[in-house]
Parts: sequence; C-alpha cells; structure tokens
Amino acid sequence: MNDFVYDIPVRVYFGREQLHHLGDELRRFGTRVLMTYGGGSIKRIGLYDHVIEEIKRAGLELHELGGIEPNPRIDSVRQGVRMCKEHNIDVLLAVGGGSTIDATKFIAAGACSELDPWDFLDYAKQAPISRALPIVDILTLAATGSEMDSGGVISNPETGDKNGRMAFPLLPKVSFLDPTNTYSVSPYQTACGAADMMSHIIEVYFDMQPGLYMLDCFMEGLMKTIIRYAPVAMHNPENYEARANLMWASSWAINGFIDGGRQQAWSCHPIEHELSAIYDITHGLGLAILTPRWMDFCLDETTVSRYARFGINVFGINSEMAPMDIAHEAIRRLSDFFFNTLGLKRTLPEVGIDETHFALMARKAVGGNVLRGFKPLRQVDVEHILHQCMH
Amino acid sequence: MNDFVYDIPVRVYFGREQLHHLGDELRRFGTRVLMTYGGGSIKRIGLYDHVIEEIKRAGLELHELGGIEPNPRIDSVRQGVRMCKEHNIDVLLAVGGGSTIDATKFIAAGACSELDPWDFLDYAKQAPISRALPIVDILTLAATGSEMDSGGVISNPETGDKNGRMAFPLLPKVSFLDPTNTYSVSPYQTACGAADMMSHIIEVYFDMQPGLYMLDCFMEGLMKTIIRYAPVAMHNPENYEARANLMWASSWAINGFIDGGRQQAWSCHPIEHELSAIYDITHGLGLAILTPRWMDFCLDETTVSRYARFGINVFGINSEMAPMDIAHEAIRRLSDFFFNTLGLKRTLPEVGIDETHFALMARKAVGGNVLRGFKPLRQVDVEHILHQCMH
Repeated sequence: MNDFVYDIPVRVYFGREQLHHLGDELRRFGTRVLMTYGGGSIKRIGLYDHVIEEIKRAGLELHELGGIEPNPRIDSVRQGVRMCKEHNIDVLLAVGGGSTIDATKFIAAGACSELDPWDFLDYAKQAPISRALPIVDILTLAATGSEMDSGGVISNPETGDKNGRMAFPLLPKVSFLDPTNTYSVSPYQTACGAADMMSHIIEVYFDMQPGLYMLDCFMEGLMKTIIRYAPVAMHNPENYEARANLMWASSWAINGFIDGGRQQAWSCHPIEHELSAIYDITHGLGLAILTPRWMDFCLDETTVSRYARFGINVFGINSEMAPMDIAHEAIRRLSDFFFNTLGLKRTLPEVGIDETHFALMARKAVGGNVLRGFKPLRQVDVEHILHQCMH
Repeated sequence: MNDFVYDIPVRVYFGREQLHHLGDELRRFGTRVLMTYGGGSIKRIGLYDHVIEEIKRAGLELHELGGIEPNPRIDSVRQGVRMCKEHNIDVLLAVGGGSTIDATKFIAAGACSELDPWDFLDYAKQAPISRALPIVDILTLAATGSEMDSGGVISNPETGDKNGRMAFPLLPKVSFLDPTNTYSVSPYQTACGAADMMSHIIEVYFDMQPGLYMLDCFMEGLMKTIIRYAPVAMHNPENYEARANLMWASSWAINGFIDGGRQQAWSCHPIEHELSAIYDITHGLGLAILTPRWMDFCLDETTVSRYARFGINVFGINSEMAPMDIAHEAIRRLSDFFFNTLGLKRTLPEVGIDETHFALMARKAVGGNVLRGFKPLRQVDVEHILHQCMH
C-alpha cells in the first residue's frame, strides 16, 4: 500500500439556496472579477442573471468571457489571459461545466506568468505552475469533476493535441454545486456525464496493487449511485435527488480521495483524448465506447479477481458463479448500462470515426512507448482496442 | 434534502514515510512549537524521539506539555494556554489520540484570547472562537476523528461537566496519519476506538430525513470496514492493512462528509458524555453499551425502513425477511460485534456504574428539555435507556 497525501481545500456550497454567498466569497480575493462561460445555456436557465445580480449587490467590477468551447481550445485560454492582464483581474468566476472550468484553470495560471499558456500543457515543455489567480466556480454539469480537482484538459487545433495537466494552484477555492442548475442538461449530456464519471472511477478501481478496502467500498458506492440515478435524471430531468447524487458523485469520482495511494496511470482517458482531439466527439461518449473493450482486453487470470469483486458489489452478480464468468457478465452489464440504459452509441463508426487515424492516435496515446496502466498497453494493443470498437 | 457546506482544508500525510515533511509543515506557521502529548506511550514506541529529531533538523524552538489525560481536563488546557503565552508559541504540535488533539484545540483557542478556556465550553457562555493557533497533529489512535474535524470534548471535574464544542478555527492544518503508530494500541483500546467510530456513523446514518444515497453507501462501506478490520487489528496488531483502514475510516466517520445536509442532533454521544463525565470510563466503551439499547428504543413502524437498510447492506441480512425481523436481527448482530467480537463489556454494572446518578445524567443529557435526535428523547426516555443497560 503506497503512502499518499490528501489535500483538497475546496469550499463547496451544495444545494439550492447558496448563491447569496457568492459576493462574499469573491470579495475574499479582490474586487475585479472575470466571469467565464460557454455557449449561453447559463442565460437560458436564468443563472446568468442571478450571478450578475449577486455580483452587482457585492459591488464588484465584472468582466466577461463567453463562448468557451466544449473541448476548450487554447485560443480561448489565451484570450482570457489577455483580459486578466488588461483589466488586472483579481479572481476568476467560471460558470459552466468541466470545459469552462478547465479553460479557466489555465487562464488563471497564464495570468500569473509571462509564458504562452500552451507551455503548461505541452508535454515536452511542462512549464511549472507555481501560481494562479484564485478560481470560484458555479457548476452546471455533473461530469468531469473539475470543480474539485486540480487538473484540466485543453485542445490545440494547430498541433492536433489535446493535453491534460494537473497542478495544485489550479484547484478551485470555492465551488457552488446547485443540482437545480443541471435540470436543463439534456438526457444525452446527462448520459455522457455519467459515462465520464464511471470511467474516472473505473480507471482507479481496476488496479491490482493492494489498496484500501474502505475506498473500494466507496468506489462501489459511487458507481452504484451513478447507475441508479443517471437513468432517473434522463427521464425526469428535474428530480432533485437524482441530480444531487450525480453532482456530488461527479466531484468525488475524481478529486483524489478514491486514489488513496493507488497511483497507476490511466488507460481509457489518454486513448479517448486522442479520439476527441481529432474528431471533437463528446469525452464521455468516447469513454463509454472504449471502456468495455479495454476491460475485455485486460481480463485474464491475473486480473479476474478484481472484475469479480466489481461484478458482485456493483451489479449484484451471484458470487457463487466462477470468477471468469462473473467478469464476463460484469462487462456485459456495464455495456448494457452504457449502450442500452444510457442509450449511448456503441461503436466508433456510429459516431463517424473510421480506422484512418488509429495508428497515429494509438502512438500518441502511449506516448510513443508503453502506457503503464492496469495492464501495460503498447501501440499495437491500443490499435487492437480501437479495432474492437468498430463493431 | 438540506443544503450544506463542505469545507475540510486539512492536509493529511498518510502512510509510513511521511514524517520528513513535519519540519517544513511546522515552519509554514512559525518557529516556536509547543508539542503536546499524553501519558508517554509515544516515548515507548519511539515516536517521541523521531519527532524531536525532525524538529531539531528543522531548527525549530521546542516546548513540551506532556501528561494530557484521557478524557482531557480543562486544567491541562489552561496550563497549555499559559505556556503558549509565556513562550509566544507560533504553532501547536499534538502527538497522540483524540484526547491530546482535543485538548490542543482549546489550548490553540485560549492562546488567542483573554478568556478562561472553559468559557468556550460552558454551554451557558459559548464564547465565540474566531481565532486559534495553527495545529499540526500526529495521530496515534484511530477513534475520535479529531485529526480531521473542528470539535473537541473537555472535562471539568470542578463542575462535573464534560462538554463539546465545534468551531472552524480549531480544525487542524496538517495531520500525519501513520498506521504503524497505532501498532502498539492494545486490543481493548482498538475495540473502544472501533465502537467510537461505529457510533459516529450510526448517529448520522439513523435519520429519517431524505439524504444522499451516495453517502448512505459510503457510511455502509465505512461500517463494513470497521467490522472487518477491528478484529484483525486486535488479533494481529501489526497488520498494516487493518490499521490503515481503521485509521482512515476514523477520520471520515466524523469529518462532516457523511452528514451531507443531514443535520440532526446526536443521541448516544451526549448520553455517554454524562456517563464518562462522572465515571471516567472510556468513551467508546460507554457508546458500545448504550448504542444497541438506544437503537432498540427508537425502533418502530416509522423508523424500521432505516434499520432494514442497515441490516441488509452492513450485515448482509437476507432482504426477503420482514423489515421488523431484519431490524431486530441487525441490532442483535451489532450487539454481537460490540460484545463478542470486540469483547467489550455488555452492561453498566460490569463497568462499575449503578443507578445512583441516572436521573441527573439523563437530565443533563437532554439539556433539561428534549434531545431532538433520530427520535426525540425526554429525560424519562434516557433514564429508560440507561436502565436497559443494567442487564
């Protein structure tokens, strides 16, 4: 069992009636606020007006950067950095989902640096991130967990890269999690978010290193929560209980608590990043397609015990069956959840992806070498997994 | 479902090889350190020498206050406050279990105030705690969760009170959780710690307000962890896996995460505090004796569903049985865990307590009125529960 450090100093206001704290929380960091958001859904649901009202009431100076893309691009980050420097911004307010928060993290770092923000994300450069402007966020989509972690993923269309980076200064200071702000999330986006959250947990759970039993139990509880409530939220978008469980689960799926010393590299995420870097598909959808095939690839006599525990404790599969049978049944149930319950597309061709770039994507996913995750993946292995996603 | 705020900015170093961070962590807050500890067990296990070495290496000025009692007393707190003021202490280092950390919290508050520290704990006065010296701790007993919460309990032998208080400034800044520091904890103290942790969870879990399903799952996982590993640690004290699971579970049983908007008053803890205020018995032992009787008292048609969920998910009781039968079986299994598996005494007479002070203790436990917990408890109800503990 590895040693670990737990350190998540994010203050979370959870619930319906919390936004009256916004002004005081922003004011802790200064008076000049840059508010970032995406395509305008926050205006449709009335959240934009509510935020403006709170900011006015607090007497803060507001600047705005809207239009941040899903799979956010480095150019939006650069624009935000310019605005921070021009207006001497004290604090960033991200209002949106993981894309908006991720972009805001690198705006926050770029604002405290003379470097181009891609230098933080370029894997060859990995410029240090020692400072960043403070970030407050208001979450509108339960999926990436960006509201409670220190990482983000940014696309660079010029280079064809979609790179991730973690750094402690990028951790939000305060997150507002109001489940009603996700009522307008479509069934499809709810499904993609659920797949993303499931994948975050699966990447940690499937590990043969000895870990903490209490965290295994917690991960199983999170997965059962997602499996139980994602379909409820899809069919009844204003079910508070479902939205609340999904929202809080999204944060805990990736804030680092479940790792508890398990420190292996992730597998499906880097492969999916290569998919969506080229094809711009929704991250959670790509993960749903990849995950069962990757699980299938990694299943053997040395790993079957983990699959069996997963099948028994998450899907309630009869523990008296043979472990290998439980494992196959567990993968079948997970596929059933992704492709039938959530209604996500099952294959790459269905989302417009063919074999053209498999070799390139596989090579980039393994970093030109071997991806040392649950099972070591060579380029040829990733290509095999991608081919399995064709039918 | 209630709104809530999640805010636990404690940095935790978990594992065997973390103490080399101690000097740097203390130095963040200054150079003059007051180290607090209990009866000397930290010297027997070699931890004292290790800490001194790290403090010397960091070039810090060290003062010491040893001899803090189990069920720590206000006089120890007062002595610590005097030392802080005399030596202009910058940071407190608590090395021990919940008693040492609890006492240190009120030393930290007292050092920043002109008031007598009992004024913070006197229920009639409730003096505000707006500041406290920073606290770093090194935990040596998995039980109270004081290493990751903002509360503490102090006894005042003059008044016969044992009072608790929570305040955000009392939250430790950094906690070192090395499971090997609990290897020397006796089977009996391990059992008492496990009972304390179980009670922390049960006080939250048994609540008929709608809460978050994901937190129900997490609480059940924590309880299964304690039930699984407490006997392992009792029989094999140097089992790292068992000690690690118990240690991390102790923190999460009471750091506030599991509450998630469930905000009802606790029941068994206030009753037990009255027991140990007069009889100085171990907190966890008192809780073990009280909890099954209290559960029995609160079971009826309006609460049985919660007991059934508990019995099925924690003890694996057959879900096809009638809910009331599952409930009774669950209480029986919990009693079996406390009194057979952990080997704790089953009745008050066995620990030297008779009926003499029942009326007084019951009156104080309900605050002279009604204790509004899972089920409202009047003085007469608490007396009834205490009488049930006689045989």
